[in-house]
Amino acid sequence: MSSCCVAIVGVGLVGKQVVQQLTSPALSGLFKIVSLTNSKHTLALSPSAPTLDAKTLLSLLPASSQPLPTESAHPAASYSPASPTELVKKLAADARASKQHTILIDCTSDLAVTELYPAAISSGLSVVTPNKKGFSSSSDLFQQVVDAQSAPNAGLVYLEATVGAGLPIISTLRDLLKTGDEVTKIEGVFSGTMSYIFNNFSPATPADGPAPKFSEVVKVAKENGYTEPHPADDLSGSDVARKLTILSRLLSINPSSLAALPSLPDGYASLDTETLIPSALADCKTGDEFVQRLPDHDAEFEQLRAEAEKEGKVLRYVGVIDREAGVVKCGLEKYPVSHPFASALSGSDNIVAFHTARYSQRPLIVQGAGAGADVTAMGVVADAIKVAERMGVRVHL
Amino acid sequence: MSSCCVAIVGVGLVGKQVVQQLTSPALSGLFKIVSLTNSKHTLALSPSAPTLDAKTLLSLLPASSQPLPTESAHPAASYSPASPTELVKKLAADARASKQHTILIDCTSDLAVTELYPAAISSGLSVVTPNKKGFSSSSDLFQQVVDAQSAPNAGLVYLEATVGAGLPIISTLRDLLKTGDEVTKIEGVFSGTMSYIFNNFSPATPADGPAPKFSEVVKVAKENGYTEPHPADDLSGSDVARKLTILSRLLSINPSSLAALPSLPDGYASLDTETLIPSALADCKTGDEFVQRLPDHDAEFEQLRAEAEKEGKVLRYVGVIDREAGVVKCGLEKYPVSHPFASALSGSDNIVAFHTARYSQRPLIVQGAGAGADVTAMGVVADAIKVAERMGVRVHL
Repeated sequence: MSSCCVAIVGVGLVGKQVVQQLTSPALSGLFKIVSLTNSKHTLALSPSAPTLDAKTLLSLLPASSQPLPTESAHPAASYSPASPTELVKKLAADARASKQHTILIDCTSDLAVTELYPAAISSGLSVVTPNKKGFSSSSDLFQQVVDAQSAPNAGLVYLEATVGAGLPIISTLRDLLKTGDEVTKIEGVFSGTMSYIFNNFSPATPADGPAPKFSEVVKVAKENGYTEPHPADDLSGSDVARKLTILSRLLSINPSSLAALPSLPDGYASLDTETLIPSALADCKTGDEFVQRLPDHDAEFEQLRAEAEKEGKVLRYVGVIDREAGVVKCGLEKYPVSHPFASALSGSDNIVAFHTARYSQRPLIVQGAGAGADVTAMGVVADAIKVAERMGVRVHL
Repeated sequence: MSSCCVAIVGVGLVGKQVVQQLTSPALSGLFKIVSLTNSKHTLALSPSAPTLDAKTLLSLLPASSQPLPTESAHPAASYSPASPTELVKKLAADARASKQHTILIDCTSDLAVTELYPAAISSGLSVVTPNKKGFSSSSDLFQQVVDAQSAPNAGLVYLEATVGAGLPIISTLRDLLKTGDEVTKIEGVFSGTMSYIFNNFSPATPADGPAPKFSEVVKVAKENGYTEPHPADDLSGSDVARKLTILSRLLSINPSSLAALPSLPDGYASLDTETLIPSALADCKTGDEFVQRLPDHDAEFEQLRAEAEKEGKVLRYVGVIDREAGVVKCGLEKYPVSHPFASALSGSDNIVAFHTARYSQRPLIVQGAGAGADVTAMGVVADAIKVAERMGVRVHL
């Protein structure tokens, strides 16, 4: 096989970057984009037509606010209303007929699309995605994805970009587990937003002048686009809980002599997660209202910071999987200023420490930007290359 | 294909760990060890015989100090004098006949074995190795290895464990490059020995009491087995130079719009490498003599440390590939105490920072133990799994 077909569902910031990288000279000819789907339309491209560049490809997909075109803007292009269910059926049938492997890249954050993964995988399509929902929601869906891998001629599933975007976190965990290491503990700052907030609110080396107020840090983070439009969506800890759910499930499906982890039937929703949303603000409808009322609660956060400072420590919002203690939890923890989570972390970086039987004296650490369209797309495209290689496409050193 | 055959050349500390991991329950049935070769003997195992456990396998290979057995100690075992050249021919012929893919794992540090890689790869064997010599010696040999990948039905080549042992360094570089990122700079502490020496000689947070002398730190490092028997072999910087040569060559063979790196015709020997061996000690025959005479030169190192301290900095022996400056070099550099190479580094850990177009504000960092038999074997076995997967062996999430 000399190339793989790729269908992309979700053509927002990440999806656009995926198109850019898949068509870059570094990967010349390795992938053939056969369809692009946004929330309203699917653009299908004839696989026999010459490969188009990213700009042309993206220009052929009408915005979801536009009506479905009645005429094709390009000889290779045709249009249909978006239906991921129909798309999966068509891709599987086309792949069987052409004997070309096809990768479904899901760049949505839509649970409904992830519910198609089991059928997609068992019908021979591979799934590559940064969408956390398929692996961090109900344990039934996760198990169906796992089981689908065993169908005859099943496709593969790769999810590096669900945790830490392009950082090698899932692949490192996989290498550790598959080579028989015992992962005793995974601990990390998994949210770029939480990283930014606490690196600034509780720095290892305090800046001159008065310490910033919690509400001020959150306000600046929101203004700079480091938070969701409603900062409570970050401060709830649910994004961290989803990532931790994925890692703990990957641990659970690999053989280990260590104690089993608590199972998470409802995924991230059943994980012990500390929310940083003051209970009085739980009813805030908008992000603006939230930011406006947050100063009323600065004293609570100030007290936490003062307690940590008294011990020579800083605050970090972390996710922890501790197999010896049998605990999986997300919340605020205190770290000494010399700890890598304190002194070495800056900006909105993620950091993840793997403690294992082999890396027992000091952990294996991966650190860097864990969010952003370009690095998320990199995680997706690196996975797509691995799928292509496993399907026999030749990529050299 | 349901399994891969594996032939291991070099059955020292790393080779033994590779045998352990390949036969561990985590990989049950994925690999079939068909031969073990030490410096004197080859043990061949009938591929049709039942799989043996690591202890039995290793017990069947006579020590190189023993004569070649005249009788087999096991029905599946047969013996021959060690000849890697003959072994490669036989493995290739057997693989063709059985249509089973075979991986040659080279756990020697022998240049002569690496010179067999081009023939092995072009005859269909895959090569997986922690042996740096094949990729850091002459540019001719490196180019032959690269070219061999293009032969019809060629095998693959994986070398993760040549840099940082089991740490995801080469795989991360590959993902960055293949997805079209521009790697502008790679900087790191690549030697566990150098890391230990300078973390102790020039710590970010000095301990109480008088600062240790350079010669004392080297002496303790030698006594604890952190250095080669002759510490000059570490202090020469050649180990770092070999690793840097490998990374810069991997950069050079991937498309980039950045300036080309200086080519290294003689590999590590033609790289700008600062030696820490005092010139007066260049003639020391033994490690013991070296350690005994090193105190004469403590003042030179003390001066370097004092100069760094005056700037609020620490000393680290690093390798740097700076594409904008067109520089590849190994040597002592000064870092502010808040830099990850200063504050976050401890023990004998490696740390590598990738600065790229995408990771431009802050680098992508990988850190952890970069030497040791178990983590080196992990790098090798994780690579072997990737080869097996690319040859169609099915491994799940």
